[in-house]
Amino acid sequence: MPGPEPATPWFGGDYNPEQWPEAVWHEDMELMRRAGVTLATVGVFSWSLLEPREGEYDFAWLDRVLDLLHANGVGAALATPTASPPPWFTLAHPGAMPVSADGVRLTHGSRDTYDVCAPAYRAASVRIARALAERYARHPALRLWHVHNEYGTHSHGEHAADAFRVWLRERHGTLEALNEAWTTAFWGQRYSAWEQVRPPRATQYLRNPAHVLDFRRFLSDAMLAHYRAQRDVLRAASPGVPVTTNFAFGGWVPVDQWKWASELDLVAIDHYPDAPGGRAAEQGAFAADLARSWAGDRPWLLMEQATGYTGPAARPKAPGEIARHSVGHVARGSLGALFFQWRASRGGAEQWHPAMLPHTGPDSRVFAEVCGLGALLPRLAGALGADVAEDAAVVWDPECWWALDAATPPAPDLDYAGAVRQIHRVLRRQGRTAAFAAPGARPPDLPLLVAPMMYLASDATARELAGYVERGGTLVATYLSGTVDEHARVRAGGYAGALRGLLGVRVEEFHPLDGGGAAVAGADGAFTGRARRWSEHVRLAGAEAVARYAGGPLDGLPAVTRAAYGAGSAWYVSADLDDDALAAVLAAAAPPARPAPPEGVEVVRRRGNDGGWVFVLNHGTDSYTVDPAVLGLPRDARDAVSDAPADGLSVPPGGIAALRR
Amino acid sequence: MPGPEPATPWFGGDYNPEQWPEAVWHEDMELMRRAGVTLATVGVFSWSLLEPREGEYDFAWLDRVLDLLHANGVGAALATPTASPPPWFTLAHPGAMPVSADGVRLTHGSRDTYDVCAPAYRAASVRIARALAERYARHPALRLWHVHNEYGTHSHGEHAADAFRVWLRERHGTLEALNEAWTTAFWGQRYSAWEQVRPPRATQYLRNPAHVLDFRRFLSDAMLAHYRAQRDVLRAASPGVPVTTNFAFGGWVPVDQWKWASELDLVAIDHYPDAPGGRAAEQGAFAADLARSWAGDRPWLLMEQATGYTGPAARPKAPGEIARHSVGHVARGSLGALFFQWRASRGGAEQWHPAMLPHTGPDSRVFAEVCGLGALLPRLAGALGADVAEDAAVVWDPECWWALDAATPPAPDLDYAGAVRQIHRVLRRQGRTAAFAAPGARPPDLPLLVAPMMYLASDATARELAGYVERGGTLVATYLSGTVDEHARVRAGGYAGALRGLLGVRVEEFHPLDGGGAAVAGADGAFTGRARRWSEHVRLAGAEAVARYAGGPLDGLPAVTRAAYGAGSAWYVSADLDDDALAAVLAAAAPPARPAPPEGVEVVRRRGNDGGWVFVLNHGTDSYTVDPAVLGLPRDARDAVSDAPADGLSVPPGGIAALRR
Amino acid sequence: MPGPEPATPWFGGDYNPEQWPEAVWHEDMELMRRAGVTLATVGVFSWSLLEPREGEYDFAWLDRVLDLLHANGVGAALATPTASPPPWFTLAHPGAMPVSADGVRLTHGSRDTYDVCAPAYRAASVRIARALAERYARHPALRLWHVHNEYGTHSHGEHAADAFRVWLRERHGTLEALNEAWTTAFWGQRYSAWEQVRPPRATQYLRNPAHVLDFRRFLSDAMLAHYRAQRDVLRAASPGVPVTTNFAFGGWVPVDQWKWASELDLVAIDHYPDAPGGRAAEQGAFAADLARSWAGDRPWLLMEQATGYTGPAARPKAPGEIARHSVGHVARGSLGALFFQWRASRGGAEQWHPAMLPHTGPDSRVFAEVCGLGALLPRLAGALGADVAEDAAVVWDPECWWALDAATPPAPDLDYAGAVRQIHRVLRRQGRTAAFAAPGARPPDLPLLVAPMMYLASDATARELAGYVERGGTLVATYLSGTVDEHARVRAGGYAGALRGLLGVRVEEFHPLDGGGAAVAGADGAFTGRARRWSEHVRLAGAEAVARYAGGPLDGLPAVTRAAYGAGSAWYVSADLDDDALAAVLAAAAPPARPAPPEGVEVVRRRGNDGGWVFVLNHGTDSYTVDPAVLGLPRDARDAVSDAPADGLSVPPGGIAALRR
Repeated sequence: MPGPEPATPWFGGDYNPEQWPEAVWHEDMELMRRAGVTLATVGVFSWSLLEPREGEYDFAWLDRVLDLLHANGVGAALATPTASPPPWFTLAHPGAMPVSADGVRLTHGSRDTYDVCAPAYRAASVRIARALAERYARHPALRLWHVHNEYGTHSHGEHAADAFRVWLRERHGTLEALNEAWTTAFWGQRYSAWEQVRPPRATQYLRNPAHVLDFRRFLSDAMLAHYRAQRDVLRAASPGVPVTTNFAFGGWVPVDQWKWASELDLVAIDHYPDAPGGRAAEQGAFAADLARSWAGDRPWLLMEQATGYTGPAARPKAPGEIARHSVGHVARGSLGALFFQWRASRGGAEQWHPAMLPHTGPDSRVFAEVCGLGALLPRLAGALGADVAEDAAVVWDPECWWALDAATPPAPDLDYAGAVRQIHRVLRRQGRTAAFAAPGARPPDLPLLVAPMMYLASDATARELAGYVERGGTLVATYLSGTVDEHARVRAGGYAGALRGLLGVRVEEFHPLDGGGAAVAGADGAFTGRARRWSEHVRLAGAEAVARYAGGPLDGLPAVTRAAYGAGSAWYVSADLDDDALAAVLAAAAPPARPAPPEGVEVVRRRGNDGGWVFVLNHGTDSYTVDPAVLGLPRDARDAVSDAPADGLSVPPGGIAALRR
Repeated sequence: MPGPEPATPWFGGDYNPEQWPEAVWHEDMELMRRAGVTLATVGVFSWSLLEPREGEYDFAWLDRVLDLLHANGVGAALATPTASPPPWFTLAHPGAMPVSADGVRLTHGSRDTYDVCAPAYRAASVRIARALAERYARHPALRLWHVHNEYGTHSHGEHAADAFRVWLRERHGTLEALNEAWTTAFWGQRYSAWEQVRPPRATQYLRNPAHVLDFRRFLSDAMLAHYRAQRDVLRAASPGVPVTTNFAFGGWVPVDQWKWASELDLVAIDHYPDAPGGRAAEQGAFAADLARSWAGDRPWLLMEQATGYTGPAARPKAPGEIARHSVGHVARGSLGALFFQWRASRGGAEQWHPAMLPHTGPDSRVFAEVCGLGALLPRLAGALGADVAEDAAVVWDPECWWALDAATPPAPDLDYAGAVRQIHRVLRRQGRTAAFAAPGARPPDLPLLVAPMMYLASDATARELAGYVERGGTLVATYLSGTVDEHARVRAGGYAGALRGLLGVRVEEFHPLDGGGAAVAGADGAFTGRARRWSEHVRLAGAEAVARYAGGPLDGLPAVTRAAYGAGSAWYVSADLDDDALAAVLAAAAPPARPAPPEGVEVVRRRGNDGGWVFVLNHGTDSYTVDPAVLGLPRDARDAVSDAPADGLSVPPGGIAALRR
Repeated sequence: MPGPEPATPWFGGDYNPEQWPEAVWHEDMELMRRAGVTLATVGVFSWSLLEPREGEYDFAWLDRVLDLLHANGVGAALATPTASPPPWFTLAHPGAMPVSADGVRLTHGSRDTYDVCAPAYRAASVRIARALAERYARHPALRLWHVHNEYGTHSHGEHAADAFRVWLRERHGTLEALNEAWTTAFWGQRYSAWEQVRPPRATQYLRNPAHVLDFRRFLSDAMLAHYRAQRDVLRAASPGVPVTTNFAFGGWVPVDQWKWASELDLVAIDHYPDAPGGRAAEQGAFAADLARSWAGDRPWLLMEQATGYTGPAARPKAPGEIARHSVGHVARGSLGALFFQWRASRGGAEQWHPAMLPHTGPDSRVFAEVCGLGALLPRLAGALGADVAEDAAVVWDPECWWALDAATPPAPDLDYAGAVRQIHRVLRRQGRTAAFAAPGARPPDLPLLVAPMMYLASDATARELAGYVERGGTLVATYLSGTVDEHARVRAGGYAGALRGLLGVRVEEFHPLDGGGAAVAGADGAFTGRARRWSEHVRLAGAEAVARYAGGPLDGLPAVTRAAYGAGSAWYVSADLDDDALAAVLAAAAPPARPAPPEGVEVVRRRGNDGGWVFVLNHGTDSYTVDPAVLGLPRDARDAVSDAPADGLSVPPGGIAALRR
């Protein structure tokens, strides 16, 4: 991050004053001060106000907003509004509208109605970004540039087709190489000229998986190019002000964050759990660990969350959850806790999106909790510079997801993200904090590396995993890993193809399971559990069997294996195991350094110049009594939240402690 | 109704002789006489026969049909055939075909293939209506003009867009007002020129709820304009002959019947229950009470029903149901009992739609029951002029339905129509006959008024409800009522917004419920029940708690409240209660005047010049013995069905009695 | 079949060497020899390689493939590649792409992207077929021409519309006749000019069932015309080489195989069971019996099957199933056992389709079983000429399926194919081998003929069934049979219309059933069972009741009836009975000639010049001991598989025996 980090964690959210008369803005300022807000994201959806007609700008209102924020001690994350072109844009540039795979040309009336590859849209995007940069680069409220919003749309129209072909030429070099990579010999799809290549539009029957996969990769790169064009303009106008964009989560998002992260001055995420209670905390930890990993060793920012649950029904968070979720992110490295949005909208598609200031107004439980959080966060300022202590790494590869999701997988219900989340969940319940490892890159130097359902594995990825094990690491790869190459082509000679030598196995057959699944048992009963939806016929080729299938078509065959390799060991879990059995395998492969905290208690460690912090979040239903020795803290550690001594401190259900040396 | 009411209840149905050779017509006449048919609806789908090529008419066959009907003592409800333009119309006016939100231009091959806003279609509609009016205005068989059929289609094409913009200008005046009403500041949707406004076509993501709501309102008005154009032609040609159209039920129907009713000389409905047995009777009563309420104090007509159930499988009605359903409608004010259709079609999309004369022919149970009904109805003639006695009113607002259905509601499974039906069901089981109240109008002077899930409430509606309570009425509003204004904008400051002062509550949070819901209990156990899918965090602001949540996140908070207001009282039910608990609340708020009849027995009272009628429909499985005192009848009342004395009369399961003074 | 039958059963599969470097081809040859492959299907999807640019051909690689096959003793089924036009075709002839009912024009990127009616596509198809014929008509490897692949696509575009109108003129003669046949009087659909008639494209509401049915018939004929054009070219070039195409199964296939069969020199099918174990064997027998029946008295060929299950998840077959399924087809008359495909694809949409040579390679269970099958099949050569002995016939009419599937059936869940499969399953469990009977043709001279759910029945079909019974046969028709005529028009006067006289019943009402259905019982308890989803109100008109409904709305009414007619008898089953009750009815109507084999054991008899064969396939879990007397074999019969004496031979679970005199 080129600019200065905040002195205390950023606190605030999206601020859309254009939805309200100016009288309300003054009430907003007063309430922001009351809540302790330090950062407001403005302008995300303001294009139609800033440029009401093509080329005519109106910045006066935004001037007043930024001045008002500044006067009230609130910094601004100033957004380029390109995620929602104005209605006039549709009429002026109908060809720049996105087109569905079925050929439906979309229109305005929501947001994100553009084809990111359309030249007219690209030009208009840079123009409005430049106008903002010129006007506000030196505004004293400016803390951060926020480009666009939640990149993730796609178009199958002619502009996308043109850009896709350019991208494909760059990727594959020759048409011959593309034909080879895509196995176009199958079903007679061989291209004899570049102009024959199209996005995967509506066709008669099953699509070509390599075609679909490359289009998804292309979409990520096409959006990244759109981002970079704006970023360059903003950077040039205001050196030192970091530029970011906010990553969304979800299978529909065709963004490879590993590739984007290096183009961002600050990685930022939006996180909305889709289930309440313990699962929400689990999802928050997962997202935070991903964000931290994308950011490398740099800080990152929770750019959006909500004060309630968002879907499918809007539903309040339980008392205390607003703070606990926020601190959970800060504990895992976020520079702050921001929300969408400050004041709940009266109308519009997200009128039921929970906000910091709810429809009910400031006299409400939610706003009281928001104010409490605003008072709490500055107490955690000392943790901002400290590294998060990590115990294990997990491979996360969006291309695996895309490869399994987008075309013709070996079974219809394979859930890559679910498999990765399961590993993260099991590690977290063991008290471990996970990093994520990028495919094709050197994994972190941590004692355990898990590669869950790593269906697609390039040669580079396989080499990096082997190097990691050779240097002494413990790798646990789970079912389906290593199956296809970067063009989604099966590696012949036995599944687990790319990892066969490392794992010491050859997988002869996949056995998707119905109904009750199949039992799995270790020799000593250690790994007793069930393969639920998946099992594999594994042949040992150097590995030993740690657990075997018991009953069913694979009775007696290896289910979990271990092979020595270099200075380390490589495990293979050929079955879709339940959490408990998986926990037992991971514990056997690499025992956790510390005992797990009680059920529902989350512990995150930070290592810093000042001696480190231990965050304790009690999501459970029993009080948790702090024993500094157990948490690796000196007896005289104190809790920054309550300012009480750590020793013997009772963290009640729903409570938070931030213990420091 | 400008013309004379029938002397006996109309009996008959849609008659489509064009599907049969003329020899069959003569058999039809004989069988209609046998069945006692008095009214036949003709011509509904005859356009392609009446005008086989544009501008070429062939009325000869219809002349013969009408003459035949007249000669056999059957009146005609003569339809304009505009619900199904001929195939030639598609080819001559391709631009007049409807266009889906996705841009798919539909073609003929079914029915209703037109854009009601297309000038070519409007012109052709008026032309064929005028031709019919000119030819048949004075035909002695003519009883009724039947315009079109079941209005309810829509188009998102250019004609619709043009008309929508005209409508919006009229509604909102200025573009600025539209921007404000639609909250276009959200997601940067601000319009800078009228031509930018379009129907809600396919777009990238969530739609603007105010946009969708206004489009649905517009559709109702656009269809009404189409209706009026024909009506004016028909009225001018045949003063005294009433003009009607038949309303369909169902969430897909964008018709605001309250606004249409005053444009009709006679309100008519088509009613097809979608479940058998008791639920069918319940649905029939609901539809009849709506129709009567739409019609104000005027009679109305059951224009279509079926001799069996219609979907998804065609299924016979149980013995006796044909008559019981028909008399149920007459009891609640219908001028007759008509069916779709007279003779079952051999082919076409509705070949499996049950008919008066089934495929099997006259030697059949169904035709025997039809003849029985034809013999019965004249015995009820005396009831035609009598008012239906009503005990309670229920607010019915299609705009609430549209607002919750069409865009982004606070939860995805909110079922407005289901909530209203539940109230009606509970009242009916208590032996009460309900009227429906129109939003924004003075409610009927009845002791109880229920406003179920009245999500959208204009200021006028809120004022009318307050006036009703002030005058001494008892209002029971249920969860979500008063939340948004007429532009679907949340009323700030606490939910129940429009009704807060009246109800004496402020709702701070909505709590959608999963799984088992939450318990609700009155202080004395009177209202013990469950909130199933919905609960609310209610803060008292003048009201007292009548029942509270027991357990769960809202434990101890008010669930049902009561506030004194003027001479009356206003209750709020913040939870989605089960039927029994809701019945207890309604009984406590306003006790029924009479004890409820036994389960399955339906009692409807008529008040007339001749002293009144009491209809008894036994949908249950036990005999019901009439006690005139209980029913408020003199000892010497008689049953018009059996001509037996009422006192001690046993109405067997499935039986009908029509008791008169 | 004009050419010579193979000396031993054909064994092999689709061979797509173009997916691999030539080095692999040589490994393929070695492995084919090892496996005993005798026939390879080549070129099915090779168009884009054979004609890389319009009019430019490259046959060199195919020359080498065919030469290589011939040199290794493998024959070729040479395919025309028209099922997948090359990408250049799309760009050169965009109007020849298929168009969905919604107007979406599909593009290449899968397979089958053409409109079979487009002149440009027809011409290109014949051109490539001719080029292949000219080059390879005399190639020594050529055994069979294989036209196209799995005909079954459709288009609703303008080319289809033009061809549809030509077809309709031919079928109906006049527009008046079409209007009558389609009941266009309903919903005002009457056509006044031919150009108004279109394919059933997107329309507003329910479609006309006769329109949809005729379009489906047309599609079959349109594809047949496409086939014939190629066949004629191939036949002319290589008299004596049989021409075939491979029929797919599934409701989406608009092919009337009865009409196609006479145009094929050899009937061929592709068969992929969609469920494992016993149901797969059941489905295989069903498909084989259909194929044999389509072929009349001629042999037929299993052109495609898989070594594993194909969907929705790819899943291995259990050990032994590959052989048992294959021999099951040969037992029922197939000239061989072919697979899709020889070598598993690395990429493309079917990369997970199981193959003879799996991804794992030759060192695998699957390839070992393939080799075992290759060794076994020649031992069955003697059976190739022998007739399959049949015990009963079942009417199979794709038009019934289409009529119930395509438009507005009397209930939404009527499953024609399921009803026919149920009859076949019940007969097979009784140890009977079924033939299928074509509608409108003289049924086979077998003692039992079943007409399940024969909803659509032409007069000709009704006449043939009556003739069959008159001659002494026993007919069992099940519910819904005889309801509509060939234009999907209900036959008036009582359902079972076309068969009323024959069956001696008149069906007054259909009673679809929910939930638990209704009981059915014979006087003596013989047919105790349940009507599950369907029952009918039957009135006897000459028949006697064999079983009656017990309880429910039809309590006491006939459920199963029997009528004497001519020298035979005609039964009617008005209910959707469970398997056991249906088996009891069929056994009462016509007792099986022999006792049923034990559960899971399949017995198929062949009658030939050499005295006959009895195949025994043990799909069950217990061993089966052969008693020649029970199987109708002499004591000295032997098993061709094991070469052991039949008497006392134990066929283990999963085992196969082929016993010969």
